[in-house]
Amino acid sequence: MTARDFQPILTDIVHTLTPDLGKEGQVAQYIPALARVPAAQFGMALRTCDGHEAAAGAADTAFSIQSISKVFALTLGMREMGEYLWDRIGREPSGTAFNSLVQLEFEQGTPRNPFINAGAIAVTDRLLNSCDPKAAMLDLLSGLAGEPVHFDEEVAASEAATGYRNIALANFMKSFGKLDHDVATVLDAYFHHCAVSMTCRQLARATGYLCRDGLHPFTGQPLLTDKQTRRINALMLTCGTYDAAGEFAFSIGLPCKSGVGGGIVAVVPDTLSLCVWSPALDATGNSLLGRRALELFAQKTGLSVF
Amino acid sequence: MTARDFQPILTDIVHTLTPDLGKEGQVAQYIPALARVPAAQFGMALRTCDGHEAAAGAADTAFSIQSISKVFALTLGMREMGEYLWDRIGREPSGTAFNSLVQLEFEQGTPRNPFINAGAIAVTDRLLNSCDPKAAMLDLLSGLAGEPVHFDEEVAASEAATGYRNIALANFMKSFGKLDHDVATVLDAYFHHCAVSMTCRQLARATGYLCRDGLHPFTGQPLLTDKQTRRINALMLTCGTYDAAGEFAFSIGLPCKSGVGGGIVAVVPDTLSLCVWSPALDATGNSLLGRRALELFAQKTGLSVF
Amino acid sequence: MTARDFQPILTDIVHTLTPDLGKEGQVAQYIPALARVPAAQFGMALRTCDGHEAAAGAADTAFSIQSISKVFALTLGMREMGEYLWDRIGREPSGTAFNSLVQLEFEQGTPRNPFINAGAIAVTDRLLNSCDPKAAMLDLLSGLAGEPVHFDEEVAASEAATGYRNIALANFMKSFGKLDHDVATVLDAYFHHCAVSMTCRQLARATGYLCRDGLHPFTGQPLLTDKQTRRINALMLTCGTYDAAGEFAFSIGLPCKSGVGGGIVAVVPDTLSLCVWSPALDATGNSLLGRRALELFAQKTGLSVF
Amino acid sequence: MTARDFQPILTDIVHTLTPDLGKEGQVAQYIPALARVPAAQFGMALRTCDGHEAAAGAADTAFSIQSISKVFALTLGMREMGEYLWDRIGREPSGTAFNSLVQLEFEQGTPRNPFINAGAIAVTDRLLNSCDPKAAMLDLLSGLAGEPVHFDEEVAASEAATGYRNIALANFMKSFGKLDHDVATVLDAYFHHCAVSMTCRQLARATGYLCRDGLHPFTGQPLLTDKQTRRINALMLTCGTYDAAGEFAFSIGLPCKSGVGGGIVAVVPDTLSLCVWSPALDATGNSLLGRRALELFAQKTGLSVF
Repeated sequence: MTARDFQPILTDIVHTLTPDLGKEGQVAQYIPALARVPAAQFGMALRTCDGHEAAAGAADTAFSIQSISKVFALTLGMREMGEYLWDRIGREPSGTAFNSLVQLEFEQGTPRNPFINAGAIAVTDRLLNSCDPKAAMLDLLSGLAGEPVHFDEEVAASEAATGYRNIALANFMKSFGKLDHDVATVLDAYFHHCAVSMTCRQLARATGYLCRDGLHPFTGQPLLTDKQTRRINALMLTCGTYDAAGEFAFSIGLPCKSGVGGGIVAVVPDTLSLCVWSPALDATGNSLLGRRALELFAQKTGLSVF
Repeated sequence: MTARDFQPILTDIVHTLTPDLGKEGQVAQYIPALARVPAAQFGMALRTCDGHEAAAGAADTAFSIQSISKVFALTLGMREMGEYLWDRIGREPSGTAFNSLVQLEFEQGTPRNPFINAGAIAVTDRLLNSCDPKAAMLDLLSGLAGEPVHFDEEVAASEAATGYRNIALANFMKSFGKLDHDVATVLDAYFHHCAVSMTCRQLARATGYLCRDGLHPFTGQPLLTDKQTRRINALMLTCGTYDAAGEFAFSIGLPCKSGVGGGIVAVVPDTLSLCVWSPALDATGNSLLGRRALELFAQKTGLSVF
Repeated sequence: MTARDFQPILTDIVHTLTPDLGKEGQVAQYIPALARVPAAQFGMALRTCDGHEAAAGAADTAFSIQSISKVFALTLGMREMGEYLWDRIGREPSGTAFNSLVQLEFEQGTPRNPFINAGAIAVTDRLLNSCDPKAAMLDLLSGLAGEPVHFDEEVAASEAATGYRNIALANFMKSFGKLDHDVATVLDAYFHHCAVSMTCRQLARATGYLCRDGLHPFTGQPLLTDKQTRRINALMLTCGTYDAAGEFAFSIGLPCKSGVGGGIVAVVPDTLSLCVWSPALDATGNSLLGRRALELFAQKTGLSVF
Repeated sequence: MTARDFQPILTDIVHTLTPDLGKEGQVAQYIPALARVPAAQFGMALRTCDGHEAAAGAADTAFSIQSISKVFALTLGMREMGEYLWDRIGREPSGTAFNSLVQLEFEQGTPRNPFINAGAIAVTDRLLNSCDPKAAMLDLLSGLAGEPVHFDEEVAASEAATGYRNIALANFMKSFGKLDHDVATVLDAYFHHCAVSMTCRQLARATGYLCRDGLHPFTGQPLLTDKQTRRINALMLTCGTYDAAGEFAFSIGLPCKSGVGGGIVAVVPDTLSLCVWSPALDATGNSLLGRRALELFAQKTGLSVF
């Protein structure tokens, strides 16, 4: 298939889902800055490995990428540190909620994987050893998106003011001696990473290296090795969508990473990367219409790793 | 690649691993009948979708398939019951040991997925509603393997006599009202399923429907639908190798299911199914050399879903 | 106070509670033989250290002592084994349900205390090293009660047939190597201990050694040492009434042990022992009217350890 | 017994324990200000209900009362709020470590009892509804001790800077909506409560109301009702000494509350209150020699609630 073939599929998906906009699910409530985003929005974009793009709906509306940033934080971590990154972070599914402290207590402050909050906080702590994680994130994403990307400072401030669970997680890890840096510094970077504002089109571009064995979608330079890229894709498939990873693997069959801002990125290895967005979430914390859109996409294209 | 191309790769893997035979890992100790299997054995076999086979090492030595039987029990369950099967069984990774009772208590007797022991016991209980699970299993496997397959009654008796953890799991589920049938009857079937004795070559054949969208490898008749088959492959990738699913997804990148008898089956969708076997296990309960063999296979062939 | 003073108090309590008989709570449902006991029954009896008795209501109706037997199993264990008994059993409150398997998994098969089911099963297993626990129990209780005491074989059979949770607990401990004896043998003794049938009057006598520093209420011979007796009283106060020990300590202020048959025994050190019985249980599994009767008794007599 | 009788007993205990000073146990390490307290110190003091005092060893050396403050915070809470206090705090033993987050997650932010850290933080939050908890604490303790009592600001600052686990606990409860006030404000009061500096003699006096049915030891005015006082004593016995409450109940048999500063207060209802102190802790976080001193005291006096 070429990008020309994908465009009608995306248009068709938008057409199919439009009547359902705002009817089900609920926008994330845990911080005020997210709670007031209008639910009835939907966008979708993709970019093929050979550089063609397709988009439909609100593909150019910026939203809070939230946990999708964990993919990029992990990318920065792997690029900066290689295997040393994994010293304090597991790589297995957690079987508990993304913000659970229980497993963290049993495992003495070592998060199960880099895609639960505790894991991404641990990655951010490690990044502080070698770079300025906030600058490095904007730099990476702006390069990948092909245009400047910014933090939504209001969202970051809202997290800092009311993100009690994340503050608890970070202090809990610190109490086990598993954070090297000051809790406030680590959380400031982590909250800013979550508060990056991007569009579907930008995220479809930015995840392009994940379907190209680690090569930068614009420069072709290696961002990660082939093996590191496969590691991220494997983690996305097994741990990328909270406690619905098993269902996503079945019904969509692609490495995905979702965020509570309503975005989901997905990767078809050697073929394309894509992003869907709709703010209303289902009970598992994944975008309700985003998920449905990905299922339709998988059905209509037959693209699946299985 | 054709089967002709695969044969030298398998031969080469056997050659590479032979010096390590019996040097690391430990044969499963929890039942006497498994504990006395000699560690220094290795075999490997594959069968392509178009019916060609390759094999190396002890590919025709029978071993106890143990948890690999969970794939076939699930297949029987899906064929017999469709969606009703999932009433009492989840489909998400567990994040805890395959024989843990903790999550089962928190989730009131509902297992996280059909590939942990509790889940397979629940599948077996459901099978008793519509068939004789022992006869159905031998029938299914004999047909898939193309030759008669048997239970190792000594292994089944050993499980029944000393499989305390599984007896605990079944009674625990029963106490939550989550088993319909008599505990002893359910466990007798479950222990026999685990005690099926098969060779690598037979298992490579028997998993053939998983790389052929559910079509029987010999008859071409649909055993499962395309969608059901994808469901099983997705579950194998996310939950098939105990608490190492994340590592397998990364280092092998194929849907796999392992057993404590030392076997591991793997599926390359639309391409081939394979089986490796070596009795010594690593700390996660997966065959140590089996895992290494699959990694070598993935490296040498480039076959991976990612 | 003398027994003469206590009689009107008991009569008064019966009078006060009679209007409430059968109005609240629910008879234990988990085994059929208990589920059909009529709820609207109440009895109470006490015996002072100097041998006087008082009783009111259905004080001579036999009921299933259930977990009250744990006090006597522990007494047998301490008498037979001394400190060795504690090798595999803790002595701290559990903070989880009396039949939970969670803590047992975290603590590798070692129960938190001898008054949760797992703990009493462990005590019974140890008893099998040196005596016939069933004969020893009847012998002990008949001597303490001053008349022959029997098992209710129907209740024991009901437990054996449907006590899935206890069967799970025993097999779980066995899987950790924490039971020396055959699971079926241990459970047969444990189920019979729970199935002892006694009256309030008999239990008030039988617990007489607990208010007399371990001296037998009839013979005056030491059954336990002073220190061992204090150990049991301390355990009753901290762990004797399931997940309501804190409330009992406050509102009653006496060492108590309850059973799901609706009985509760209580000890006023150096003064008296008593037993109340009413089959309907509250949400914590303690006799609803039994608990209220003990509160009234504590209020009217001012007897409390605090 | 009169205070005249107690003096030689205390002197004798000091004599017995002096050779063991500094030989076993370890001073609390979790904050720097406590970690540098010299281990080889011991003091003991008591005050009878009728106002006589006895003391031995370093009875007039001030130390950090730490968790002993939880008794006084609870007293303030009960006095200010009555039953409303218990809205968000349980009253049962926890079965897990005093600073565990696990049970808090299962019980949605509601602490098991007011003597674990989470429970005392919840009490402090409630106090902020009606008073200035820091001023109220100093006021209460100065009145009870008969002389001005102060915060050790260095200890409070050390807690605020490095008490990560407590910061985690408070933010965790806040994330469940179970704290009304600002986390920093609540923790500031909580850390100051823990940082009160008092001597054994002062604490023996200050706990005087607990052996006098709630009457102030100097003024005789009711501080709490008889019933409220019994509630506190019951909680001290079942939950006052971390995960050693069962052992304390047995070997000492008195309501006790310990702190990681090495102090332990104990109550003999209607008789006396006492305090021991020695900074080196045992594995359960209780003062090692303090515990031994209480055991000797119980043995020599025969005072025990059992």
